[in-house]
Amino acid sequence: MIRAAVAGATGYAGAELVRILAGHPEVVLTVLTSRQYAGRSFDSIYPAMAGTITAQCESFDADSVCERADVIFTALPHKLPMDIIPGLMERGVKVVDLSADFRFRDPELYEAAYQPHAARDLLSEAVYGLCEVFADDIGNARLVGNPGCYPTSVLLPLAPLVKAGMIDTGSIIADSKSGVSGAGRSLNMTSLFCEANESFKAYKVGSHRHEPEMEENLTRMAGKPVNISFVPHLVPMNRGMQTTIYASLARDAGDEDIRNCMLEYYEGCRFIRITRDGRPPDTRDVRGTNYCDIGFVIDRDHGRLILMSAIDNLVKGAAGQAVQNMNIMWGLAETVGLTGVPFPV
Amino acid sequence: MIRAAVAGATGYAGAELVRILAGHPEVVLTVLTSRQYAGRSFDSIYPAMAGTITAQCESFDADSVCERADVIFTALPHKLPMDIIPGLMERGVKVVDLSADFRFRDPELYEAAYQPHAARDLLSEAVYGLCEVFADDIGNARLVGNPGCYPTSVLLPLAPLVKAGMIDTGSIIADSKSGVSGAGRSLNMTSLFCEANESFKAYKVGSHRHEPEMEENLTRMAGKPVNISFVPHLVPMNRGMQTTIYASLARDAGDEDIRNCMLEYYEGCRFIRITRDGRPPDTRDVRGTNYCDIGFVIDRDHGRLILMSAIDNLVKGAAGQAVQNMNIMWGLAETVGLTGVPFPV
Amino acid sequence: MIRAAVAGATGYAGAELVRILAGHPEVVLTVLTSRQYAGRSFDSIYPAMAGTITAQCESFDADSVCERADVIFTALPHKLPMDIIPGLMERGVKVVDLSADFRFRDPELYEAAYQPHAARDLLSEAVYGLCEVFADDIGNARLVGNPGCYPTSVLLPLAPLVKAGMIDTGSIIADSKSGVSGAGRSLNMTSLFCEANESFKAYKVGSHRHEPEMEENLTRMAGKPVNISFVPHLVPMNRGMQTTIYASLARDAGDEDIRNCMLEYYEGCRFIRITRDGRPPDTRDVRGTNYCDIGFVIDRDHGRLILMSAIDNLVKGAAGQAVQNMNIMWGLAETVGLTGVPFPV
Amino acid sequence: MIRAAVAGATGYAGAELVRILAGHPEVVLTVLTSRQYAGRSFDSIYPAMAGTITAQCESFDADSVCERADVIFTALPHKLPMDIIPGLMERGVKVVDLSADFRFRDPELYEAAYQPHAARDLLSEAVYGLCEVFADDIGNARLVGNPGCYPTSVLLPLAPLVKAGMIDTGSIIADSKSGVSGAGRSLNMTSLFCEANESFKAYKVGSHRHEPEMEENLTRMAGKPVNISFVPHLVPMNRGMQTTIYASLARDAGDEDIRNCMLEYYEGCRFIRITRDGRPPDTRDVRGTNYCDIGFVIDRDHGRLILMSAIDNLVKGAAGQAVQNMNIMWGLAETVGLTGVPFPV
Repeated sequence: MIRAAVAGATGYAGAELVRILAGHPEVVLTVLTSRQYAGRSFDSIYPAMAGTITAQCESFDADSVCERADVIFTALPHKLPMDIIPGLMERGVKVVDLSADFRFRDPELYEAAYQPHAARDLLSEAVYGLCEVFADDIGNARLVGNPGCYPTSVLLPLAPLVKAGMIDTGSIIADSKSGVSGAGRSLNMTSLFCEANESFKAYKVGSHRHEPEMEENLTRMAGKPVNISFVPHLVPMNRGMQTTIYASLARDAGDEDIRNCMLEYYEGCRFIRITRDGRPPDTRDVRGTNYCDIGFVIDRDHGRLILMSAIDNLVKGAAGQAVQNMNIMWGLAETVGLTGVPFPV
Repeated sequence: MIRAAVAGATGYAGAELVRILAGHPEVVLTVLTSRQYAGRSFDSIYPAMAGTITAQCESFDADSVCERADVIFTALPHKLPMDIIPGLMERGVKVVDLSADFRFRDPELYEAAYQPHAARDLLSEAVYGLCEVFADDIGNARLVGNPGCYPTSVLLPLAPLVKAGMIDTGSIIADSKSGVSGAGRSLNMTSLFCEANESFKAYKVGSHRHEPEMEENLTRMAGKPVNISFVPHLVPMNRGMQTTIYASLARDAGDEDIRNCMLEYYEGCRFIRITRDGRPPDTRDVRGTNYCDIGFVIDRDHGRLILMSAIDNLVKGAAGQAVQNMNIMWGLAETVGLTGVPFPV
Repeated sequence: MIRAAVAGATGYAGAELVRILAGHPEVVLTVLTSRQYAGRSFDSIYPAMAGTITAQCESFDADSVCERADVIFTALPHKLPMDIIPGLMERGVKVVDLSADFRFRDPELYEAAYQPHAARDLLSEAVYGLCEVFADDIGNARLVGNPGCYPTSVLLPLAPLVKAGMIDTGSIIADSKSGVSGAGRSLNMTSLFCEANESFKAYKVGSHRHEPEMEENLTRMAGKPVNISFVPHLVPMNRGMQTTIYASLARDAGDEDIRNCMLEYYEGCRFIRITRDGRPPDTRDVRGTNYCDIGFVIDRDHGRLILMSAIDNLVKGAAGQAVQNMNIMWGLAETVGLTGVPFPV
Repeated sequence: MIRAAVAGATGYAGAELVRILAGHPEVVLTVLTSRQYAGRSFDSIYPAMAGTITAQCESFDADSVCERADVIFTALPHKLPMDIIPGLMERGVKVVDLSADFRFRDPELYEAAYQPHAARDLLSEAVYGLCEVFADDIGNARLVGNPGCYPTSVLLPLAPLVKAGMIDTGSIIADSKSGVSGAGRSLNMTSLFCEANESFKAYKVGSHRHEPEMEENLTRMAGKPVNISFVPHLVPMNRGMQTTIYASLARDAGDEDIRNCMLEYYEGCRFIRITRDGRPPDTRDVRGTNYCDIGFVIDRDHGRLILMSAIDNLVKGAAGQAVQNMNIMWGLAETVGLTGVPFPV
């Protein structure tokens, strides 16, 4: 059994990690840390878990955590992870970090979007945990930077096509929409029920910090610099993320060409579902699951491809992909612990 | 392995049965029937299930179903089950019926609330499937009438106290609130998003057909006729049912007395969770689970007990309890296949 | 024209006052105060109002406000109003206070539920602003304590029947449900979208501070001490409050008796609508309006009356009733400025 | 006073017309027709209107309607209007049609997207009622084709820039999101609460019938053929429509250039609000109002302009714009009857 610790267990992503790991047949959850709720039982914070997760939350202590865990999931605010992860790795544990701190290869990109990086030397070792794309690297990794939710929803539909040179990488536009849980469990005005309900709007237009993360990885895939236009929007629902991508086709291609390109690239990838006949993926169909559903339509008038993806921002966009990364790191089938039957409604 | 069929698999309760049974370690789903969608794959109706439930829906045919199933869950509109279940039982299968047709012992009560009963003789054999209360009878049953969602949410908190004579059974008032999925997947005006959203109202005040179902069972528990006042309300959410019950205490009792009465009665019942210190149960804490959370407060000014329960109307209020009934009928632990970790959000 | 000031203009109740007063034909809004947003334009806080309410919010200064206003609406947290209102009244303005500070006649009741009262002597002068019940007193008032939202929804259906002695005042149970805006615009965990959405629960069972407010007024109406059981619940919607009341009939009465009692008592009261044939009032039908819709059903089995009311908690439950109070204080028709056509959806 | 009739008064757009017209100071509502609810009072269909709109719905009869009305708003399903409007016009009334039947100049475009047109000769007379753009034509019109909700949200932000030649018309992509009321009050599966709630998805990708309507008008504005890519999405909320538009700048331009182009074009247009500093417009800020809020950000990396608009699909996207059209046709100020103060929440 893999002994797992969740640092930052009481935020939404952390609690979702707890949910998934508690049902994972190869994992035993040994440590839950929480700055805010140290000393309280997990199920007093999330009463849903009463009788299921009764462990106490504790303060983070590197020595203590590393003694009891083989893998640590850090679901902490940006900046904290880069301070503590070097120490964890010295103690010999593996780490899946859900913050942005180890998502970038290029420290300049990170620092332009976030802040000075305190563990630059680890960036070259860290692996970007987009499972279906970088599985080989992940398998050998000691430290995985788990992708952001928006980048996951944008990169998965694009990866096969960009790698195959089928789209004009200068033309990519990603229009994304996220449920409110994407903002986490912190108290801010825009997350209040009465502010988010019966409301739809864009935010951080052209300045969201997930955009350089997308671009660094699209650049790797394309083998040349890629810049995109990205606009995130807020949807009045708890979970779910939908992205519609517009890109010019680099060469003439029909539905079957696009479909085959995707099916070949994602052969054997159980969590990627390509819809049929252009059916647009719906966030409700992936709620609570690790699926990324992808659909597409070719807009012949403009030689433009319209790609659509749907994920659960807390699962494939965070905790689910993190566990999938752990599975790959430990040589397990990538689906272990992630195959709960979806809810019909 | 138990071979299970779901008749009426594409309604919300039927689809929830499919979800739960597909994850049940002792069950193999062999037949899904649907009048409306016969010939189509289940996952074309519920794309969430793509790759998980790809079986075809078929028309209902008693011979064919009974050959391939040991247990049949009938999730059909009232009246259909009483026509087909006698034939199923003659063929030797066991049945859990999710309609009202076999919930009553007294055919007069059924007929007053519904319509003439076509299988009156089976009523005496059928067992009311309120698992925690009638487990012994269920264990020997060939036919279980699965309780209504409202009765489940009302009877579970009341059963221990009524049986112990702790409350004045003439004083019971149940104020219930249900998510919209309780109305099923049929097309009616009040289930439209724009009609139900940003709306809260009572309906069928004093005339809901679940009221006689509650009363027949409270009468059995009390050993004397019990009538209650019951008002259901509609809440703008998908899943969840909350009930607040008001009843006069029959004798002086303190928090510990009430609490102990419940804990003793429900000892070993994994799906009943009594909250501490009067914390009101929240439907979000039971969403997707088979739990019934119960809390209470004594209103000392009036010698009145305030009981609160929360269930997921589609799980403990329908499909989950149905599977729990099957588990009991087959001598399995009642929790098998029903222990998914709850969602934090 | 009446010069009106709103103190605490940027909370939800304050902003709703601004909305209503801005459309009131006899009012000119002269002062908006906000501790948090002083120096900013109102429409930068509520962009909906861009081009409509461009005035700047300012810090509260008694001299300055009283020079420019004939009436001050204080939409401030409890405790602040009792400190500042005596000074306002000395300066000769009239006040409608939306906090609890001047809702009680008996200072002991206030102090038991809230805190020591700093302006006890004003309590005897202050009038409880339940418009349809205490219109005569309000007409002569200099200071009105605007009723709480829950008391409004409970007292309006009960007043005619309690006054007529038609119900047993020892038997009253009020089960209320409120939209999330009732919690105001402050940052607390339970008001977060992901906590309130897809959730339904009771809160503050038997301890909500609106209960003594109801009881003091029911006692006045009944001419003898009245205690009730009251349980508030939280509904995932922005606006709206529904209450279902259960009470034993004091004497035999039929539908027409109840209906006539109400119609007579509320004759000429434009904002009270009694539904026909027991149709349950729906919060969506009063959204954005000053209506209180009331329906009822007699539960003959128990000689029990089931009363239901629906209001918009921010309008009839707060800002609308406050403006109605002002209308009465100034001798205007009570409906002036409050007759916007309701939204169909 | 203008005597107004609403044909199809009980759908969502029709009911919203009733709401607005009932509060219009220059209008008297004389006729409400409804096929489904003929013979019933309007407020029995929409109880929100009890005491406000008590008129009876009647069957449509051209003679009878035309005798009692100066203007007829036809809020009927496509195809019905083209059959009845010729007869209405012969009787001398003016018509604002909310269907698609008279939105096109080119009958071929209409017929390709809808069906054969039964009143082709009227198409040349009919005026496209995009008020801020075609006010002059509308002023002289007897028949106005009221724009679709999506076209309104797309054309208003684009019109000034397309006319000024500031954007490359071959590059336009419109990603739109609509509340569920856009689907009307008819019974279809995707409009059920449980299907739309906690869900976000695209639909009719590349095949929505509003796309040719946009293109015909963009072509008029640009003076050359314009094709766009358009993807509509469904948002779990009642009202509101947001569109994010991506287009390449035709020439170098800064924020002030774009802003000034819009401000000049929309000078004096009270219902167009350009937000400052790129603030994204939010549907909640226009709910229940006739505003179209517009924001923009220049994406310098790609020389791309990102335009965002927010409208209430039932008001500026339907009934509000229809009344604005009537105001212009009658020479009233365009804002009469449309200036209700917005709701803060």
